[in-house]
Amino acid sequence: MEQYQQLDGIFQALADPTRRAVIGRLGSGPASVGDLAAPFEMALPSFMKHIHMLEEVGLIRTSKSGRVRTCTIETTRLAAVDDWLKAQRLIWERRTDRLEQFVTEDKDTRK
Amino acid sequence: MEQYQQLDGIFQALADPTRRAVIGRLGSGPASVGDLAAPFEMALPSFMKHIHMLEEVGLIRTSKSGRVRTCTIETTRLAAVDDWLKAQRLIWERRTDRLEQFVTEDKDTRK
Repeated sequence: MEQYQQLDGIFQALADPTRRAVIGRLGSGPASVGDLAAPFEMALPSFMKHIHMLEEVGLIRTSKSGRVRTCTIETTRLAAVDDWLKAQRLIWERRTDRLEQFVTEDKDTRK
Repeated sequence: MEQYQQLDGIFQALADPTRRAVIGRLGSGPASVGDLAAPFEMALPSFMKHIHMLEEVGLIRTSKSGRVRTCTIETTRLAAVDDWLKAQRLIWERRTDRLEQFVTEDKDTRK
């Protein structure tokens, strides 16, 4: 029915202020899990659950070098949300066009 | 910490294909709960839960006339998602600008 099945997980992942903050921070560039966790009053295992969820839905990728795990944002995933929103906007615009056409036809100025 | 607290509920509401389909349908104009439910193989009480969730987070509003409940989309709520995405894009763009500046300075063409 829908071409956006991955959106379930992406929207779910974004429905949390900690995960949105991580996405916001990673927008400025890759960061270690330690640096990402620092602003939050949260035990590391709890924080890691957020990181894993973001990684699972593909919003970030992580790589480990020695003891440091570095996170990088995957902007293409957020683009999927953008695409969905654009599709919605298209639906509304078509509707507005139809309403406009109706008004225009009513004024008998049809092309 | 974040100005987008309502986003928790909005993203949560959008993390479901039925609810996204309802939003998509309502983009074309208001519809009764019966019409909205028709395409889904789902008991009405289950479908109503989706409607209530969308109404709770403000993505739709509903009004009852006699026995018919009509649903209308609230596009301003989806605009909140759009605003958040735009804020993220701004962060990436600033980063890209810094990278560009770095490359430019490296070429000694600083203004």
